[in-house]
Amino acid sequence: MPAYSTNMRLKFPILALILEIITIALFGIFVVYDDGKGHDAHQDAHQDPHHGDHHATNSSETSPMDLYPMFQDVHVMIFIGFGFLMTFLKKYGFSSVGINLLLAAFGLQWGLLMQGLWHMDKGKIKMDILKMINADFSTATVLISFGAVLGKTSPVQLLIMTILEITIFSINEHLVVSILGANDVGASMIIHAFGAYFGLAVARVLYRPGLRNGHENDGSVYHSDMFAMIGTVFLWMFWPSFNSAIADRGATQLTAVINTYVSLAACVLSAYAVSSLVEHRGKLDMVHIQNATLAGGVAVGTCADMQIQPFGAMLIGLVAGIISTLGFKHLSPILASNLGIQDTCGVHNLHGMPGVLGGLAGIIAVAMGKAAKGSAAMQAAALASSLGFALIGGAITGLIMKLPIWGQPPDQNCFDDSLYWEVPEEEGEHDGSLAAAEKNKTEA
Amino acid sequence: MPAYSTNMRLKFPILALILEIITIALFGIFVVYDDGKGHDAHQDAHQDPHHGDHHATNSSETSPMDLYPMFQDVHVMIFIGFGFLMTFLKKYGFSSVGINLLLAAFGLQWGLLMQGLWHMDKGKIKMDILKMINADFSTATVLISFGAVLGKTSPVQLLIMTILEITIFSINEHLVVSILGANDVGASMIIHAFGAYFGLAVARVLYRPGLRNGHENDGSVYHSDMFAMIGTVFLWMFWPSFNSAIADRGATQLTAVINTYVSLAACVLSAYAVSSLVEHRGKLDMVHIQNATLAGGVAVGTCADMQIQPFGAMLIGLVAGIISTLGFKHLSPILASNLGIQDTCGVHNLHGMPGVLGGLAGIIAVAMGKAAKGSAAMQAAALASSLGFALIGGAITGLIMKLPIWGQPPDQNCFDDSLYWEVPEEEGEHDGSLAAAEKNKTEA
Amino acid sequence: MPAYSTNMRLKFPILALILEIITIALFGIFVVYDDGKGHDAHQDAHQDPHHGDHHATNSSETSPMDLYPMFQDVHVMIFIGFGFLMTFLKKYGFSSVGINLLLAAFGLQWGLLMQGLWHMDKGKIKMDILKMINADFSTATVLISFGAVLGKTSPVQLLIMTILEITIFSINEHLVVSILGANDVGASMIIHAFGAYFGLAVARVLYRPGLRNGHENDGSVYHSDMFAMIGTVFLWMFWPSFNSAIADRGATQLTAVINTYVSLAACVLSAYAVSSLVEHRGKLDMVHIQNATLAGGVAVGTCADMQIQPFGAMLIGLVAGIISTLGFKHLSPILASNLGIQDTCGVHNLHGMPGVLGGLAGIIAVAMGKAAKGSAAMQAAALASSLGFALIGGAITGLIMKLPIWGQPPDQNCFDDSLYWEVPEEEGEHDGSLAAAEKNKTEA
Repeated sequence: MPAYSTNMRLKFPILALILEIITIALFGIFVVYDDGKGHDAHQDAHQDPHHGDHHATNSSETSPMDLYPMFQDVHVMIFIGFGFLMTFLKKYGFSSVGINLLLAAFGLQWGLLMQGLWHMDKGKIKMDILKMINADFSTATVLISFGAVLGKTSPVQLLIMTILEITIFSINEHLVVSILGANDVGASMIIHAFGAYFGLAVARVLYRPGLRNGHENDGSVYHSDMFAMIGTVFLWMFWPSFNSAIADRGATQLTAVINTYVSLAACVLSAYAVSSLVEHRGKLDMVHIQNATLAGGVAVGTCADMQIQPFGAMLIGLVAGIISTLGFKHLSPILASNLGIQDTCGVHNLHGMPGVLGGLAGIIAVAMGKAAKGSAAMQAAALASSLGFALIGGAITGLIMKLPIWGQPPDQNCFDDSLYWEVPEEEGEHDGSLAAAEKNKTEA
Repeated sequence: MPAYSTNMRLKFPILALILEIITIALFGIFVVYDDGKGHDAHQDAHQDPHHGDHHATNSSETSPMDLYPMFQDVHVMIFIGFGFLMTFLKKYGFSSVGINLLLAAFGLQWGLLMQGLWHMDKGKIKMDILKMINADFSTATVLISFGAVLGKTSPVQLLIMTILEITIFSINEHLVVSILGANDVGASMIIHAFGAYFGLAVARVLYRPGLRNGHENDGSVYHSDMFAMIGTVFLWMFWPSFNSAIADRGATQLTAVINTYVSLAACVLSAYAVSSLVEHRGKLDMVHIQNATLAGGVAVGTCADMQIQPFGAMLIGLVAGIISTLGFKHLSPILASNLGIQDTCGVHNLHGMPGVLGGLAGIIAVAMGKAAKGSAAMQAAALASSLGFALIGGAITGLIMKLPIWGQPPDQNCFDDSLYWEVPEEEGEHDGSLAAAEKNKTEA
Repeated sequence: MPAYSTNMRLKFPILALILEIITIALFGIFVVYDDGKGHDAHQDAHQDPHHGDHHATNSSETSPMDLYPMFQDVHVMIFIGFGFLMTFLKKYGFSSVGINLLLAAFGLQWGLLMQGLWHMDKGKIKMDILKMINADFSTATVLISFGAVLGKTSPVQLLIMTILEITIFSINEHLVVSILGANDVGASMIIHAFGAYFGLAVARVLYRPGLRNGHENDGSVYHSDMFAMIGTVFLWMFWPSFNSAIADRGATQLTAVINTYVSLAACVLSAYAVSSLVEHRGKLDMVHIQNATLAGGVAVGTCADMQIQPFGAMLIGLVAGIISTLGFKHLSPILASNLGIQDTCGVHNLHGMPGVLGGLAGIIAVAMGKAAKGSAAMQAAALASSLGFALIGGAITGLIMKLPIWGQPPDQNCFDDSLYWEVPEEEGEHDGSLAAAEKNKTEA
């Protein structure tokens, strides 16, 4: 397919370079270092527009690097966690970790601009560690959606998705956090549910009838499952940082850490139990273990900094592990066959349903008076807003991604690195060239 | 073997769910967030019941999140370090990293309860980062013992072991730290020696004559050795955090970091040298490199916060690397053939002997006046107590684990993920089904 | 080749043990824990002999463990980052990560002594976290040079190189930082350019005509490329820590983090774009992605703590990604064929040219008044000094390494673990014995 390759040969590098040059220009105009003036006020404003109750934070102790270890934990989740989690496919490891790096590296720049627009100080975005954490967060939405369309989209399509999704995310985030004043410290709604349903909407629009009966490369091999576990375990370990990074310092941040830690621990037990219950001969399924063990981190996000007590967080984790595993086993096949939603990584089970669960738990917890601020109605509005922006934004984005100019890969080359990467030849298995693939086909 | 599978099909998930529900109920009754009141006093009490000499710590500066980066380092050791270190077996990677996650996730909840019982405040366990670090520590004992029986036990057996071992560990820890007032900041005795001899006692009780001549799956392949190195290197890097996490803040914590850092560095050189000396043609053996390079971290544990000076720590590391490597080469085969102790990962060489070495070094260092508190006699009592609880506790636990109801795997399915996991089919190598295995056997 | 093996059998372990024992003795004589007295003054002196302008750092807030999270990030880069980055070769993974561990573990001890000699306090080297970071830094030079000669040198040769390179590095570092007073907070010149040109000089001296037409093992397989990505991503994520670890605390350190973060992000886009532009059919090349995405971290090093603004840092990263990728594609083959420089990992493209670019950017930035201190002339002198020490030091070191007594591997055994490691037999692929290799050769 030389036409296709010629297309890509020019489109991808030119798009990447133009995007980067535009981004640098925008950084030149808008972005400066934070000089520490008006720092605390700004920071609080980001999390909470009504920052009257923040005098407890003794601002004399804060230094600009305080959040840096938290930032690095989140950074590891974005680049190692999401990157390796998606390497489970047998022939798509280069793309999983490589395109993850590409999208996240571009996304964090774009996210910094999009999020910063809402918090300008005299026309400038003042960059600090908190903004870097939030920029990393904004890329998480894209990486979640990437999971839904993994193996079926070109790098050019994915760069388009990155721009659009982060832009839409930033609008919804501003609405939820600053206008509605809703609680979502661990972002069950604004990142996880948003990213999942956005990706599912894209996947629906990009539905491929040709993959209705599966694809020989849409599966794992032993070592690819091992690589994926690197992603799983790093996500699992650092999720307490994800859910607490932008929490109010001190006791509140500790609460967010504890809730996430115990929710994840409880979730592991329920994910393993249900995986064994639903599988053939009581065996465990790597797909469940790689994903559903993390659902507790997603689901406890909205409530992470609330006084739900450790056992409350554990109950959330327990339920999340159950519904996530059941979703992989029973719901994903239905979504694929009946609704035309081919969700490669099962993000609906890891981020979608647990994210909605987190949003619902947040409504209940706020109604029960467990939060320092907010109202159940605003929490419900935040959940509805996140789902609405995700589904409509994702559908529009999917339509744009479907334009034939972006070089969508043909069905038979899905889930295969060799379309976009030079793949080393080995034992005739990863032959790495379309020519060889064609040849095999002819001979077969 | 359908009978076996049916057994497991119900036993494992039911046990896991029941344990988790009981644990959540206990958390509901006993565990609350730490509100910061009486925090410092409590913390010191945990390490040192005679906390008269702690006024140097300027408590005004401590915040509830101070220890969080240390906690995360320890967390990485537990879940990535131990998990991947055990992935060296060619067909047991899913179980190594997956069951490691399961046991640690359950163990940290159980450990939090068991350790917390000794430090209740008005009937409540007040959860903070220090308690989370100690909970992670308690799971380390189980993961060490898991190494001794790796490949030869069912998940149900291992959950039973987790409950019993952490319970016994918590008793011994309380005795050593609070009653005897012994020094063991890096836990050479109470974690490493304890976990190793506990596991060896279990392995002895579960002795399998059928594996006397080895097992075809009890070995590594090239890539499984590479995965194991991920575990080794993360353990190696973060060991200074392990040994200093609960040390007194400030200069003492720095001392623990420095001693561990230089001990590990010296240990690498001696492990490489001795590996090359004892191997065929002077080659290096991956088993030694994966394990013995860490012995310096184990052995310096008890003395880590003492004024032994960097060169003293290096001498401990040098000796640890030597005895650990020699143990792998010469002692493990004897233990297996003469004493009936089949120690899959060689935990005796990595945790057992170096742990005892650490205990002995602690006795000497305290006798030489290098410690701020304690006596040589109490150090010796602590070592004896740890070994005694480990051997007796491990033997009893082994007997319980040997009950036929827990579904111990048959000899021919040892060291094979496919008994408990859906394993992807690939190149006829990881066939992933007992049926296929049977078929092969028939044809062969 | 029994003679060779007998050589190694004794030389390597004896050398390793003797070196370690000498090192321990030197630690016994010179190294003590830092007692905190004169701490801040000393620390500033290390970075800046004219420390009159450091009163802004409120020393009352510093504690001895403040830099520990930064240290651990750097530690991960050294041991996981460099170690796994080099595992891309199909049959050299054990050596890459294993010898990396060996050299770094010895190098950090030697570096602590060599660097400490210039900063003694009453005849003692007072060890603290900052010195541990600098010791880790000193090993980075060796690991960079190791990349140039990867697969073609024996462990004994590499230990010799470690001693000599760190010694020479420490002299140049002292000259650049303390005598010239040049800026190089992220060490573009004194680590990256130095390590690369040192290694290239060694590689030139050790030129192997027999490898002129390549070597069958000098390439990757699918999974070895995946392992290498672990190294890449950890290096990428933690590079902000590398470039800011020894920066002045507070706002300056934040500046170094931000500049590195955005430079790396921009670099990813340009590396991907150019990789696709120059490759066959617009495909991406793993070698570029594994390496050139990091060039932005190297190149922004010298300017990292200067007021170059985020967009300035991004421009540096953009250019670094371009020249690094072009170097891999077009310059490396020329160096190999025309200059006799066989650079296994392409360190010239990742560390050499981007390091020089960083040095040049530093000269310009200082001339533009972006730095708090220093002069363009001193920056230029620092760059010249670093290159001079590297090339001359590397050439001399190469000559010493070429002495036949160190057991250089024969051409046909290059890039093959089985010369130095017991390699598990599997599918006749990694046969792990010279005998089998000989047999194959005979049969072929």
